[in-house]
Amino acid sequence: MNIPNSVNPRIVIIGGGFAGIALARKLKNKNVQVVLLDKHNYHNFQPLLYQVATGGLEAGSIAYPIRKVIQEYNDFYFRLTSVQEIDTKNQKIIAEIGELSYDYLIIATGSKTNYFGNKEIERNSMGMKTIPQSLNIRSLILENFEQAVLTTDVAERNSLINFVLVGGGPTGVELAGALAEMKKAILQKDYPDLDIDKMEINLIQSGDRILNTMSEKSSIAAEKFLDNLGVKIWKNVRVTNYDGRTITTNSDLTFETGTVIWTAGVQGALVAGLDAKSLVEKVERIRVNEYSQVIGYDNIFAIGDIALMENENYPQGHPMMAQPAMQQGKLLGKNIIKLIRKQPMEAFEYNDKGSMATIGRNKAVVDLPKYHFSGVFAWFVWMFVHLFSLIGFKNRAVVFLNWVYNYIRFDREGRLIIRPFKKKSFTTFTSDEV
Amino acid sequence: MNIPNSVNPRIVIIGGGFAGIALARKLKNKNVQVVLLDKHNYHNFQPLLYQVATGGLEAGSIAYPIRKVIQEYNDFYFRLTSVQEIDTKNQKIIAEIGELSYDYLIIATGSKTNYFGNKEIERNSMGMKTIPQSLNIRSLILENFEQAVLTTDVAERNSLINFVLVGGGPTGVELAGALAEMKKAILQKDYPDLDIDKMEINLIQSGDRILNTMSEKSSIAAEKFLDNLGVKIWKNVRVTNYDGRTITTNSDLTFETGTVIWTAGVQGALVAGLDAKSLVEKVERIRVNEYSQVIGYDNIFAIGDIALMENENYPQGHPMMAQPAMQQGKLLGKNIIKLIRKQPMEAFEYNDKGSMATIGRNKAVVDLPKYHFSGVFAWFVWMFVHLFSLIGFKNRAVVFLNWVYNYIRFDREGRLIIRPFKKKSFTTFTSDEV
Repeated sequence: MNIPNSVNPRIVIIGGGFAGIALARKLKNKNVQVVLLDKHNYHNFQPLLYQVATGGLEAGSIAYPIRKVIQEYNDFYFRLTSVQEIDTKNQKIIAEIGELSYDYLIIATGSKTNYFGNKEIERNSMGMKTIPQSLNIRSLILENFEQAVLTTDVAERNSLINFVLVGGGPTGVELAGALAEMKKAILQKDYPDLDIDKMEINLIQSGDRILNTMSEKSSIAAEKFLDNLGVKIWKNVRVTNYDGRTITTNSDLTFETGTVIWTAGVQGALVAGLDAKSLVEKVERIRVNEYSQVIGYDNIFAIGDIALMENENYPQGHPMMAQPAMQQGKLLGKNIIKLIRKQPMEAFEYNDKGSMATIGRNKAVVDLPKYHFSGVFAWFVWMFVHLFSLIGFKNRAVVFLNWVYNYIRFDREGRLIIRPFKKKSFTTFTSDEV
Repeated sequence: MNIPNSVNPRIVIIGGGFAGIALARKLKNKNVQVVLLDKHNYHNFQPLLYQVATGGLEAGSIAYPIRKVIQEYNDFYFRLTSVQEIDTKNQKIIAEIGELSYDYLIIATGSKTNYFGNKEIERNSMGMKTIPQSLNIRSLILENFEQAVLTTDVAERNSLINFVLVGGGPTGVELAGALAEMKKAILQKDYPDLDIDKMEINLIQSGDRILNTMSEKSSIAAEKFLDNLGVKIWKNVRVTNYDGRTITTNSDLTFETGTVIWTAGVQGALVAGLDAKSLVEKVERIRVNEYSQVIGYDNIFAIGDIALMENENYPQGHPMMAQPAMQQGKLLGKNIIKLIRKQPMEAFEYNDKGSMATIGRNKAVVDLPKYHFSGVFAWFVWMFVHLFSLIGFKNRAVVFLNWVYNYIRFDREGRLIIRPFKKKSFTTFTSDEV
């Protein structure tokens, strides 16, 4: 892989998400050689992907070049590649661009959409875990509207502007709210020849409340906010299939729709090669101890969504969110140096700062560890927390400017269909995983 | 094409560039039905494409949704489609999405890259006339650098970071300057393991001066600015072929390069169906009279780059630039209404406001009709003229903010490789026309 030899021990990090970047920053100029691998050349701020998908922000505003993060780090290398396999016996990784040996390996590959084995749903619906996927969702929404104005078949037209979001977690809820805003702010004005009342936003949740990782108060508030925005919430409904045209469920309920966005589950983005004992089936996460060490290995670690650290408070591991990932990355940065110096490592303790979700134009729900609030003030809190979590001054300024503009003008100008538009036969909506 | 019947005469406009949009604006609520067709759903500000290609601006900042332009226009329709043919006999157009009859037809399809019939150059080099093309150039530049750090073959590595721009017009010159800035501001810092001095920027011009549509003083000043930036200018050199690896020329000179950007010529983006007598061969433009009427037709017009209006001052037609296109669009808007009212039309007279080009960080050359200046003040003029020519307040604000940030920080953060990165065998660089 053309990495220079070094007197320093080599630490290989797979993944430049929240966990990987937090770790990398802690390893700056610490007499270690670090090689950071990612299949994208940028870190992306996943919590705002839904705004890229709905035209509120440009992709560049929520992404940050990885090479820029590490610009002044010594003995620090970035390589753009996916990783196929870990050869634990020979202590090397096998990547698309070649092999690389490691002294310490950190797996921070994050998570991907979980279709629970249903290939037909996977083929016909859209996931939203990456920037290219978000841009594809944006294009698909607008393409469907362009297609809808062309057709004289009422059933087809309604189906094209019927949106179904499967999964009532934060991503589904925030996307539903943003779509409702997009409907009022843009689509109604841009497509005067369509009957916008026919545009439906359906949010399907298999459990009995949305945002079920948050407090019950938040669930109730979020439902009310979504209801006010005209989003239809279907609870206790489980999607059984989607053939590109019709969603079937575990009840008689069906949906005719051209756009299904699937946020109903995530699973670890595993790299092959670890011992089966180290893995947790179904969720595809990697079992780690309190030092983020992968069970069964001394010099392999996993952090972020991919890692499952069992403990009393979190018997099924920490939530797959930015906060635990960043905290694990930070601590591991210290611990690896301690390990190298043969000092005892520090056990991870998750500092739960709370969670929040925004709904539509100016509402949010916020759960702090001992306090819950919702509404416009919660939205202000949401906005500033997200603004200051972005990397880079310029991104913050541009995002802020966009939000102010969008808010004042009731507009979202990010509506370029960048991929080529082809008039499609109705049944060939395809997602385009990148 | 599912356009409602109307009591108003139907005007069909093909193309939402500078000419088409200027025309559309003049036809707002004028008791005509207007159908505007474009293969993109946005108007793009071509003069700044080179900044998208070099990471200075995001695509969304220089594009504007066409549907937003016409949001409050009565009896006004936009359709996203390419147009295959004009059936002048039956007064209809044949598009990908169906057929449409017209009372008046305006061809404003602009221009496309002219490879002068060399298919191999077309296949292996990149044009820069659209936003997707600019994004592809950006990705290719960064991909080549990612590829260069992987290889241990010195010749291959040098070739990957050797850039050749063919064509010394404004696009080639501005791109060369921006690449030189990108080299200093980003690439040098982002790729410390590469010897950045090996990155060459070669600008090849077939004539004896660059910017040959501008004053000689501007050519000389621009050459000096480029020279200071380290750009190598090759004059009186004609490229004969590029096989994806080596450029050959009409002399002994050859270039080993992985990136060729071709700005050496443009031709009209013709739509089939017009009588051969109306066309100008080689440049593929449409011959029009002083009212922009296509020679041989009463109710078909052509404006902008595609139109060639011969007159005393411009024996080969007006320059293929934004200014003539906008002026022709505006006047035609008035003239069509006059024609419908059976009033005499007004002949077009081009008001040459001058031309300019920017070079690098803070230099430009400006030719006013009777006055020339260059340097930092010219760059200020260039900047404000372009800023205020953008459509939309938010685009102006975001572009301004980006420019200030890039200027102060010597940075360009738009460096996302959005298309999937695959390690390539060296000979398979491909352009990707959209």
